[in-house]
Amino acid sequence: MSEVLATYILEVKQDNLEKKAEAIAIGLTVGSWTNLPAVEQEQLQRHKGRVVETKMVADNKAIITVGYPAVNFSNDLPAVLTTTFGKFSLDGKVKLLDLSFSEELKRSYPGPKFGIEGIRNLTNTYERPLLMSIFKGVIGRDLSSLKEQMKAQALGGIDIVKDDEILFENKLTPLEKRIPVCQEALRESYEETGKRTLHAVNLTGKTMELKENAYKAVELGADLLLFNVFAYGLDVMQALAEDPNIPLPIMAHPAFAGTMISSPDYGLSPGLLLGKLARMSGADLVLFPSPYGSVAMAKEETQAIARNLIEEDQFKKAFPVPSAGIHPGLVPKLIADFGMDSIINAGGGIHGHPGGASAGGKAFVQAIDAVLNNQTLVEATVDHPELADAIELWGGK
Amino acid sequence: MSEVLATYILEVKQDNLEKKAEAIAIGLTVGSWTNLPAVEQEQLQRHKGRVVETKMVADNKAIITVGYPAVNFSNDLPAVLTTTFGKFSLDGKVKLLDLSFSEELKRSYPGPKFGIEGIRNLTNTYERPLLMSIFKGVIGRDLSSLKEQMKAQALGGIDIVKDDEILFENKLTPLEKRIPVCQEALRESYEETGKRTLHAVNLTGKTMELKENAYKAVELGADLLLFNVFAYGLDVMQALAEDPNIPLPIMAHPAFAGTMISSPDYGLSPGLLLGKLARMSGADLVLFPSPYGSVAMAKEETQAIARNLIEEDQFKKAFPVPSAGIHPGLVPKLIADFGMDSIINAGGGIHGHPGGASAGGKAFVQAIDAVLNNQTLVEATVDHPELADAIELWGGK
Ligand SMILES: [Mg+2]
Ligand SMILES: [Mg+2]
Repeated sequence: MSEVLATYILEVKQDNLEKKAEAIAIGLTVGSWTNLPAVEQEQLQRHKGRVVETKMVADNKAIITVGYPAVNFSNDLPAVLTTTFGKFSLDGKVKLLDLSFSEELKRSYPGPKFGIEGIRNLTNTYERPLLMSIFKGVIGRDLSSLKEQMKAQALGGIDIVKDDEILFENKLTPLEKRIPVCQEALRESYEETGKRTLHAVNLTGKTMELKENAYKAVELGADLLLFNVFAYGLDVMQALAEDPNIPLPIMAHPAFAGTMISSPDYGLSPGLLLGKLARMSGADLVLFPSPYGSVAMAKEETQAIARNLIEEDQFKKAFPVPSAGIHPGLVPKLIADFGMDSIINAGGGIHGHPGGASAGGKAFVQAIDAVLNNQTLVEATVDHPELADAIELWGGK
Repeated sequence: MSEVLATYILEVKQDNLEKKAEAIAIGLTVGSWTNLPAVEQEQLQRHKGRVVETKMVADNKAIITVGYPAVNFSNDLPAVLTTTFGKFSLDGKVKLLDLSFSEELKRSYPGPKFGIEGIRNLTNTYERPLLMSIFKGVIGRDLSSLKEQMKAQALGGIDIVKDDEILFENKLTPLEKRIPVCQEALRESYEETGKRTLHAVNLTGKTMELKENAYKAVELGADLLLFNVFAYGLDVMQALAEDPNIPLPIMAHPAFAGTMISSPDYGLSPGLLLGKLARMSGADLVLFPSPYGSVAMAKEETQAIARNLIEEDQFKKAFPVPSAGIHPGLVPKLIADFGMDSIINAGGGIHGHPGGASAGGKAFVQAIDAVLNNQTLVEATVDHPELADAIELWGGK
């Protein structure tokens, strides 16, 4: 029988553990059980939640896994989340660590349309991590400033340049003008370097207008879509991913996700929300705070996200993109932690380079090359002045 | 100049307070400031965030209010939330306490379509709190069981009966059959008692199918829509509220909201999410955990939600519905706390009555009457056996 297993960590005392687990399994499904007549129990048996596992993990904390029969809900994430962590999310200290979908249920979710392999084909980039950079300080700037910034980044050897996630429809750089102007910058850069760079365009607007906005972005030549999925809903991203008229990779941004994943006591685990559920609902790339940098996340959490994005599954793999506060000196660590199938993503670490954004991009390319050639960064600085400047400024070895 | 003010509580030391506040105001808008040439500062001035207020509230906790110019974002909640609490939600211990929209910005949000007044007209119920009850244990049950339960609740004098929020499209009681059967039960009850009862139908399904499902519910005769808005997104509820082809009140259920409001250190305040934002985006009624009962919320949080739902504003008022673990003995407290313009909502406190759901409803009606007549519940038990049974079982005075 198809079911979703939900694993929670919650506050409970040993002597109340089994009772609590049973109360969850019954309370979130058939409502009551022991007092029901045998004939009703028989009728409700296939709808009844079951306690799969209980274990104490601290004096007053337990991990409980409950199975929810799929017959109880429609197979969409709002229904699954409401069933497994709807009312229950308000019930004291309880955090949803994982959801495990039966193979059959998973078939209703799209997963990444392109996945790591598809993105590698688009960027013609194999056997190394991809390099991404982020527009900086674009609010209030005009198209020529945007174009200049795009070209500087592309000339540095960047694979994907992403819009700032806080760039919305605005008079200075609306979608209609931003996409063609950025594509023009990318053509100019390609003519100079022979290297192609892609532009991830921020898909914004009201939920019910997103598809139309995405079609427009497609028509205007966007290469990928950036999407603040957690300010909308995973199910909205799924709708975009499933639409055959939106044949672009989707890059999920973690904006607003901190409201749901930051507390140790409440909400959802980062590995579940940014990893498993984002991939299931169609993200081809997922940004999350790196364990280093300014906005940091615990290393084991970042590893859990990445693992959920790339482990074998019926879905394509999605690119982990550890972000925030990344500079070239961190490249060896990032590759050690996240491997070749990840994306190195920088904002300040590119634009803040003493030689400007192009030099910043080059320093990253050089750092990646060094790691691939089993050189230390310090060794690589000898032939690479941009990397040398970066290491001097931000450190690294 | 139109702006959104965001108020945060965050971990910061006194000696870093002003710097931190400035970093938020700049970082989440123009990106950099002090190092910009004067001509660029002039150009960016109207886009720059401003620090409105900072104050230490504990040794290492401060409240900071930042103003974000509306010119920076499209006027929709995903954009506002991404701007004010996107990346920032991931930046250590920080909680979004409030958002304050300029009058001009607020005009882009619908607010409740019916509001308290509209719901009172629909239920023909004035000068007392409304009484609502919740189907219990409906998963796995067939239509006749549902009908029986509906009729029993209605006969008890209930104003609104709401679907269980975990009742999704299912073979036994799909929307098409559930709505007419429940309406039939309500007609039968009306013929017996002369009292009208309304049915709040759970609107479920994939985001992009919700409007169609809502149209269907309208056509089938649903009286209100119940909506698990936090498993979807506030902007989705707004789209439903703004649709003229969905002329029904919307009841917002707090399922999944615990992921965002439960932590003292992270997420959003309950008053903001379940109060202000739910009302702005079109909820006519909002359920939230009462300060009593099984799933409890701190009294000051519940008061903040209620205040934000009913305080004077350009929006209609929305009904506060404190829920979970409510029995007739709590009616005096609920009315003292939430006033006449609130809804008394019970599940177990109705169905668990020794005389069944109808007796349970009657006990609540009697308890409300007692309060309106300045009687104690104990005094009222003399003429009211249903209330007497309830008080004996659950307590109250
Ligand atoms: Mg950004
Ligand atoms: Mg319920």
